Amino acid sequence: MPDPILVEVLRGARVESAHRGAVAVVDADGAAVLALGDVTRAIYPRSAVKALQALPLVESGAADRYGLGEEELALACASHGGEPAHVAVAARMLARAGLDAGALECGTHWPSHQPSAQALARSGEAPSALHNNCSGKHAGFLCLACATGADHHGYVAATHPVQREVKAALEGMAGVTLADDAYAIDGCSIPTWALPLEKLALAFARFATGHGLSPERAKAAGRLRAACAAKPYYVAGTGRFCTRMMEHFGTRAFVKTGAEGVFCAALPEQGLGIAVKCDDGAGRAAEAITAALIARFLPMDEADRAFLARFVRPTLRNWNGLTVGEIRPTQELLPG
Amino acid sequence: MPDPILVEVLRGARVESAHRGAVAVVDADGAAVLALGDVTRAIYPRSAVKALQALPLVESGAADRYGLGEEELALACASHGGEPAHVAVAARMLARAGLDAGALECGTHWPSHQPSAQALARSGEAPSALHNNCSGKHAGFLCLACATGADHHGYVAATHPVQREVKAALEGMAGVTLADDAYAIDGCSIPTWALPLEKLALAFARFATGHGLSPERAKAAGRLRAACAAKPYYVAGTGRFCTRMMEHFGTRAFVKTGAEGVFCAALPEQGLGIAVKCDDGAGRAAEAITAALIARFLPMDEADRAFLARFVRPTLRNWNGLTVGEIRPTQELLPG
Repeated sequence: MPDPILVEVLRGARVESAHRGAVAVVDADGAAVLALGDVTRAIYPRSAVKALQALPLVESGAADRYGLGEEELALACASHGGEPAHVAVAARMLARAGLDAGALECGTHWPSHQPSAQALARSGEAPSALHNNCSGKHAGFLCLACATGADHHGYVAATHPVQREVKAALEGMAGVTLADDAYAIDGCSIPTWALPLEKLALAFARFATGHGLSPERAKAAGRLRAACAAKPYYVAGTGRFCTRMMEHFGTRAFVKTGAEGVFCAALPEQGLGIAVKCDDGAGRAAEAITAALIARFLPMDEADRAFLARFVRPTLRNWNGLTVGEIRPTQELLPG
Repeated sequence: MPDPILVEVLRGARVESAHRGAVAVVDADGAAVLALGDVTRAIYPRSAVKALQALPLVESGAADRYGLGEEELALACASHGGEPAHVAVAARMLARAGLDAGALECGTHWPSHQPSAQALARSGEAPSALHNNCSGKHAGFLCLACATGADHHGYVAATHPVQREVKAALEGMAGVTLADDAYAIDGCSIPTWALPLEKLALAFARFATGHGLSPERAKAAGRLRAACAAKPYYVAGTGRFCTRMMEHFGTRAFVKTGAEGVFCAALPEQGLGIAVKCDDGAGRAAEAITAALIARFLPMDEADRAFLARFVRPTLRNWNGLTVGEIRPTQELLPG
C-alpha cells in the first residue's frame, strides 16, 4: 500500500502537486505514538543524523581537548549555508586540531546562502571545502581522528576508525545492528547507513531524554542539544527552517533536516523522537510535515502557534510577490 | 487509485526516493497511444505551453512586423537561464516594439545559470526583469500588444486582450473550452490555465503536425517548431535538458519543461504529442520520464540511443564526483 499523501501544494484553488510520506513518532521505550505510512522501511537518514554522528566527538573527550564550545558543537551538527561565520568556525575547529581546509574530504560547493555566494563571487574568490554545508561535521570528524591518534587521511571511508565509531553510535542510539554493507555514499562522501524510520525516531527519543543510554552518552547528547539550542544559527543559517525553529523553541525542540525529504526531531519535555521521510525526497514537504508534528505534539501558547503557522501552511508567492498558492498538510497529520 | 511510480532514485543498491506521475501520448486525432495514471485530471501546464502561448504572436503578424527571427521566436518559447545572450535577445525584442525592460511585468530573479549569476554579482550589478526566465515570452506578449494596438500596461491580466488571445489559442489547440476562472497565477504573473493531461498531449500532437488547425495556425506552429529546432540554446540554455534534446534531435523532437514536474513534447514525424505530470512536482523525474518516452516513441540509431541514455538513467555524483546512485524509469515506461 502506498504511503499516504501528507502534504498538498495548491496553486489557486487546485492541488497542483502532492507529497506522500511516512512519519514515526515514538517515546524513549520505542512505543509508537504516531505511525503514518510504512515506518518499518529502512531509509537513508542523510544529514538528519549529524547530531548522532557528533556523539563520538564529545564522548571521546576530543571536544574538550580542543576546547570546542557551543558554536563549534552546533556546527558539527549542521548543514550550514556557507555564510562567513560558518566558514570561520569550521576553520577554527580545524586549527585547534592543527589542521586546515586541505584536510577536509567533503568536497567543495558554492554557499547555499545566496547573499554569501554572491559576495564570494564579487570578491573574485572561489569556494573551498569550508563552504561545503557539511564542513562543520567533517571538522568534527577530523578533531575526533586527531584526538584519538588515528591517521586522519581517508577519514570518510566506512572502514576508518572515525566512521566505525559513528556507525557504533548510530547502532547504539537506534537499537539496531547494521550490516557492514548496509550503507550508501552521502553527498559529502561518508557512509549513510539505512535505518528503519521507527528506529530513527527511537534514536531521537533517546537523544531527547538520555533514557537507556550510558551516563557518558546521555551527557554528550544533552551537551549537543544545548549547543544547538543556544546557537541555532550555526546549525543551518539565516532564514533556514532548523535555525528558525530552534531560535523560537530553544531547548523545547531539536530539529534537523536531511537531504531527500528527511527530518528528525527531538522533543525533550515530551520524551518524543520524530522521524519523517517524504517518499519523493521533497524538502518543502518534509518541512511542512515537521512543523505540523511540532504543532501537534509540543504544548504551545498562541504566540508559538502564530509563529509556527507560516511553516505549517506556507504561503507561495511569485516573482512579483503575488500570493499564488500555499503548501498545506493533509488531515492525516492533524490530531484524530 | 494513485498514479503509478514512474521513476526511482537509487542511492547505492537501495531506492531512496520514488516519483509517481501520469503520462499521455496521443496522435493528432486525439487517439491514446499511451496513458499511464490519470490522464483526465486537469493540471497546470505552467511553462510547458510557452510555444502555444507564442502562437498569437506569429499568427497576428506581430512577429513579422517587428522582424522577429529564429532567436527571438525561440526565446518567446523559452524558460531561459538568464545568460547574457538571452538577456540581449529579450532586450532586442522589446526595442523592436519601441519598449524597454521597464515594460516587463514578469518580476525579477537572479539568472538560474550559475556562472551568469556569478558574473552578474562580480560586476556589481543586480538582475533585472530581463533575467527572468520568462522574459522572452513576455517580450513576445508586449510585441503582440503593441502590434495589435492594445495598451500594453497590465498585459499579464486574464482580462487583457493579449491573455484573451493566449487563452483562445490554448482552447483551440487542446480542443477544450476553459471557464473564465479556470486558472491560477503563474510564477511570472500571467494566468496558467488548468487542462486535462490528455488534452495537453493533443495540443502538442496538433502543434507537431498542424493536423486539424487553420492554415495560418499550422504555419505558425511550424515556424515556432523550426525556430526552436534551429536555436535550441534560446529555449533554455547551456547544459539544460530542453536545449540538449533539441540540439541533438533537431526538428525530430520538440520538448519543453514546465514548473512542478510538467513536460510537453511533440514528435512531428510520428505525429505524436506527449504530456507528462510528475505528481510531486519533481523536475528530475519529469526529465527522466520525457527522455524515456522519446527513447520509446522516436525511432533512433545507436548514436541517438547512446546520447539519450544519460538522460533516461542519469548517474548521480556527489561533491567529490563519486558515483553515489542513479535515477531510473520504472517498467511502466518501457515498451510492453
